[in-house]
This record gives sequence, structure tokens and C-alpha cells, in this order.
Amino acid sequence: MIRGNDPILLTPGPLTTSLRTKQAMLSDWGSWDAAFNAVTASIRRDVVEIINGGDDYTCVPLQGSGTFSVEAAIGTLVPRDGKVLVPNNGAYCARIVRICKYLGRAVVDLAVPEDQPATGAIVDAALSADPSITHVAQVHCETGAGMLNDLGGVSRACSAHGRSLIVDAMSSFAALPIDVRATPFDALVAASGKCLEGVPGMGFVIVKKSLLESRAGNAHSLAMDMHDQYVYMEKTTQWRYTPPTHVVAALRVAIDQFLEEGGQTKRLARYSANCSTLIDGMAKLGFRPFLKPATQAPIIVTFHAPPDPAYDFKSFYEMTRDRGYILYPGKLTQVETFRVGCIGAVDANEMRNVVSAVEQTLVAMGIRQVAPSAAARKAA
Amino acid sequence: MIRGNDPILLTPGPLTTSLRTKQAMLSDWGSWDAAFNAVTASIRRDVVEIINGGDDYTCVPLQGSGTFSVEAAIGTLVPRDGKVLVPNNGAYCARIVRICKYLGRAVVDLAVPEDQPATGAIVDAALSADPSITHVAQVHCETGAGMLNDLGGVSRACSAHGRSLIVDAMSSFAALPIDVRATPFDALVAASGKCLEGVPGMGFVIVKKSLLESRAGNAHSLAMDMHDQYVYMEKTTQWRYTPPTHVVAALRVAIDQFLEEGGQTKRLARYSANCSTLIDGMAKLGFRPFLKPATQAPIIVTFHAPPDPAYDFKSFYEMTRDRGYILYPGKLTQVETFRVGCIGAVDANEMRNVVSAVEQTLVAMGIRQVAPSAAARKAA
Repeated sequence: MIRGNDPILLTPGPLTTSLRTKQAMLSDWGSWDAAFNAVTASIRRDVVEIINGGDDYTCVPLQGSGTFSVEAAIGTLVPRDGKVLVPNNGAYCARIVRICKYLGRAVVDLAVPEDQPATGAIVDAALSADPSITHVAQVHCETGAGMLNDLGGVSRACSAHGRSLIVDAMSSFAALPIDVRATPFDALVAASGKCLEGVPGMGFVIVKKSLLESRAGNAHSLAMDMHDQYVYMEKTTQWRYTPPTHVVAALRVAIDQFLEEGGQTKRLARYSANCSTLIDGMAKLGFRPFLKPATQAPIIVTFHAPPDPAYDFKSFYEMTRDRGYILYPGKLTQVETFRVGCIGAVDANEMRNVVSAVEQTLVAMGIRQVAPSAAARKAA
Repeated sequence: MIRGNDPILLTPGPLTTSLRTKQAMLSDWGSWDAAFNAVTASIRRDVVEIINGGDDYTCVPLQGSGTFSVEAAIGTLVPRDGKVLVPNNGAYCARIVRICKYLGRAVVDLAVPEDQPATGAIVDAALSADPSITHVAQVHCETGAGMLNDLGGVSRACSAHGRSLIVDAMSSFAALPIDVRATPFDALVAASGKCLEGVPGMGFVIVKKSLLESRAGNAHSLAMDMHDQYVYMEKTTQWRYTPPTHVVAALRVAIDQFLEEGGQTKRLARYSANCSTLIDGMAKLGFRPFLKPATQAPIIVTFHAPPDPAYDFKSFYEMTRDRGYILYPGKLTQVETFRVGCIGAVDANEMRNVVSAVEQTLVAMGIRQVAPSAAARKAA
């Protein structure tokens, strides 16, 4: 049997990476070896540079998915008697609430509608109302719907009230502009397999050094103790425990390509072109995005599912996959949706092609009614 | 510049993997896709089969290094008021003691000399002396020195006293024989990047289903909650959080090669031949292993460092690496040593070659006195 090309992943990660990135995994590296540890050191420097962190910030990488690094940041940085405000407009915000509960950190779960951004005003009001809140954990791009939250406003509110800000920038880092000099925060969490276009398997926390250095003994877990990982890595240049060496090597080559492309501004330009090409093409088929344009991050787009009785997501997914494109299910609780990612080693041409694949799938499934009913759109 | 071949890793992991295993990472996989989740399911089945776990045991994979899975097993399976006995004859045993302290689990740190195995008699005495011990956490092969602990004896002692046994089989699983029917345990922890010869980035716990299912709400951490990972995976076939897709795909292909080679008995035969070829060759140069043959696992060999004043490990390491072989530092506290691994996609020919490389390094460094002094050997 001749195997076709791999399908293109239009998902929030893992995503389609370049062949050059994957080829970096064709070597084995010793985790004690200086050559490997120089790779780790260069990644740490480069990601701090992306947010203009200078000498005040450091990067601590951690094995596992991005969620592991989010938990590690909360567990290491929030004192055991701290209290965390989570403006919650989606699944990834809800996950941080759950982490706080596991870790026994007091948490304020501040409901924000799924189709509206967290803003400085919302956070300002919550901080004014509860002076016992010590930290705000803000998801930058809430991938549940594809929402761009107002990180700048939230940062200003935290600064005005003297509270600590931890940013979950999992799906925005390296694509959306984040400059810690203009948008102060204490820590930011991201991962290898998102907009840096590496493969999944490690996350990292970019954190104010002086803060991290004050957090010895605070973590709830040995594996998740970012302070211990930091101290060991500074002393030895090595990871504490076996690193995912191939993932690290791939991330190095992915960052090389990020820099060659022109860094964050050029990556944002490509993703923005992907996003508008996708939305325009899907609109011609009758699809409508769930979010308003002003709050739509160019990372992943949530579309209303067709109200046609012939539609079901599983068949729609499988038939579009067979045409070469992997979509993603919706993650909203009230409205039936599906999602299409704009990130990864893909360009506007792939976006035109996925629209064609979706069009063919609609025909094959006999779906005629694509545009959402007025009721469905209002429910959103 | 022409880049030479990658050096061979003679370390306890990451280790040298086959090209076929690495080539499995040249595809991107969607973590929601059925094709990927079928890979996960097949790995889970195959590793349970290796210990003859039948339907009573399940495998729960976890992102991160093997240590993450060790912590997850302790945190999920040991009740918060439980008490863990750790027979401690090396660095990996000491790490479990440290995990218990982080997690607030009572722990008995039972010192066993680094050159002597943990035995059933030692554990039996400890369990008789302290009826409040609920669990024994036993490292099977303690890689700190390369020691083979007496898992059979420890298992019998646990059964006799009705205590729960958790086995850290990180460096022994799939190479040394472990049959849960003959050597009962409640849970066993291993990882992708050891004797299965995959790449590092995930671990797994093979655990008695009925036990795991009774442990909802026990874990200290969301990321490390094996029960939650299990329930979600059983329900959806998916990992809870982004899996290291390329690492998982590589492990699948690595297990294929493990089965094609003839499974655990054939792998043990190859590693045993590697180990004896290494020890015989090094003996001709004057090197002596730290451990007695009866307790030497065919996984990694600790050698006494040459007492010659011209020796220093860093130069020895670098000059041998430049000849194509990556060794590993010693991890003992009292005696100066270095280690050479016998595991990975290597055979006796590589072992002969590393001995040649070491011989050339000795000449280049001007080392004449290789055999340890009687005093050093006695100190061990």
C-alpha cells in the first residue's frame, strides 16, 4: 500500500511542524553532554529575549505538556496561603481553577462569558472587591473559543493594585506581541509545541528571577518544583531529570526557523493571513465564526456547526481528514461548534485548501444548510 | 564541515536508539485523532503483556520523565496517611524518599550499603518492626551503582506482611524478567527511554486496576493524578493533556522491534553479552567493577576510576566522547567511579569498540595506573 502524505493538523497543538524540525530528532543526545546542555541554554536565552526579559527574567523548562508547566508555576510561585483570581471564559481558565483546588490554593473563579474577553475593568473590580487576592492567573488566548483576552488591561489592573500576574500564554507566545516592559508580569507559561512550532513534550516558565529565587520549599511536588529545577540547572547546566532530548533538539531548530522567518511580527503576519483567508473562505460556504472579529485571536477559529440534520461532527471530521486536513472539535458548553487552527508550519495556501476540503465534505454529506440559525447565533 | 556520526550513548538513558525508532518521529500526529489513540492503546496493552498482567492490570502513561511517573504513582496510590518503606542503596532510592517528603507521606528511609542488595530478609525485618508501614517502594535495578536488588524476596516479604509493593523498574523493565504472577506487586513504574529503547519523554505505571480505581481524589497534583488520567483515557481513548506525540509514535516502533527481537529474554541475552564483553575488555585494561558479579545487573556497570594522578573524569569523558562513545559519571558518594551502560540499540561489537576507545584515551592522557588500589577497593 502506498501511504499518502500525512494530514495537515489545523488544531491548537500538536500542530504541523516543518520537516527540518522533525529531522532534528534523527539524532540521540546524551543528557549529561555539554553539546546538549548548550542547546538547552540557548533555548532558555532565546525565549526570554522574545518577551524582552533582559537580565531580570529567566526561563525554566519543564518536561511534560504545557499544563504541567502551568501547575508548576502556580505551585512554585503562589505561596501556600496565597489567593488566586482566575478570570474564567473557557476550558483553559477552568483548568487553572482546578489546579488551584488540587494544590490547596484559595481561588476566586470569576465567570466571564465565553464570547467576551477578560478586561482590565473586570479584573480591577474583582481586585478592589477582595484585597486578599494575591495573584491573578490570566489566560492570554483562551483556545476554548479562540478568544483574545486583554492582557494589557489585566496587567495594568494588577500593577495598580500591587498583585502578582501569572500569564498562561500557551497558545499566544511567539505569535502575539508580549513585551514585559510594556505589559509587566511576574511569570509567563508556554510550551514547545505551539506557536514556536516545535513538537510537544516540554513547557517552560519565563519568570522574574528575584521572585523565583524567593520560592525555595514552596512547591507541592518534586517533579513540579520550578525552583529546584532552576537551582540545579543554574549549577550544572543540566536538567534535573531525564529531559525529552529529541523534543529539546527539535525546539532548537524550530526557534532557528522562527528567527529566520523574522520573529514574532512576521509569525503574527503569517497567522493573521491564515486566519483571514480561512474566515473569508468559510464565509463563502456559509460558515460563521462564533466570536466577533475584535476578540478573535489569529490562533484558532470557532465556527458554528451547520444546523442541517445531515451534519454530525464525527463524520464531518473523518471525511475532512480523509481529504488531508485534521480539524478540532468545539469546546463550548452551550453551542454546537467546531474549530480550525491557523497555527503551525502552514500558510494561506493550506487555508484555501482546507476550505475546499470542507466544501467537498459538505457535498458528500448532503449538507445544504450551513449558516447557523438566528437562534443559535443569538444563544452565543 | 562534514559532521561525523553521532556518538554512541553508553548511559542509563537517554540511550542510543535505532534509526527506525527515530524515523517514526518524522510524522506529526493529531492528539484527538483515532489513528494516534490506537497507538496509545496498543502500547498500553503491550506493556501490560510484558509483565503478564492479564485483565487485572492496566497501564497509565504519563508525560514527562520517569521520575514524574514515580511521583505520580506514590501520590496517587499511597493514601495521605500511608507510610512508605524505602530500602535505600542509591540515588534513585533516595529520590523516592525525597518525593515522599514533598508529598507529606510518612517515609522510612532504610539505609542499605551501596554495594549490597536490598533483600527479602531486610524488608521482612523492617516490616516486622513497624506495623504502621503500608507500602514498600522498591527500586529494582539501582542505577546509581548498577545494583540488582532482590525483587523476588522483597515481593515475598510484602505478601507475607500484607503490605503494598510499588516497584521502580525504570532501568530493568523489558530487560530483566518480571512476572507479576510469580512476583506480585501492586504497581510498577517504567519509561519510554530505557530498555524498551524508545526516546525519552514519557513514563507509565502498570497498576492493579481495582487498586487504582479506589484512588479517586487522593493525588496531590492535577498533572500527576494517575487516577484522573486513567478515567479520562478509558472514557475518551485520549490523553488528558497534550501528549508527546512523537515520543509516543517512537515508542510504538521501538516496541515493535522489541517484539521482533524476541521480547524480554532475547533483550536480556543481548544486554548480558554486552555487559560481559564490556567487563572482560575493561579488565584487560586493568579496570575493576565496583559491584560483585552476583549483584551486577546487566544494565550499567560502575568501574573504579584509575588512581593515576593523570586521571580526571572530565578529560577522560571528553576524550572518549571524541572517539565516539559517551560514558556516564559515577554517582557514589564514597568512591571515585565512572559508569558505562550496556543498554540501547547496541551490541557486543560496540562494547569491544568502547574498550578500544578507552584504551586510546588512557594512552593519550598518560594514565599508567588503572587498577584501583587495595585501599579503594576495600573502601567499597
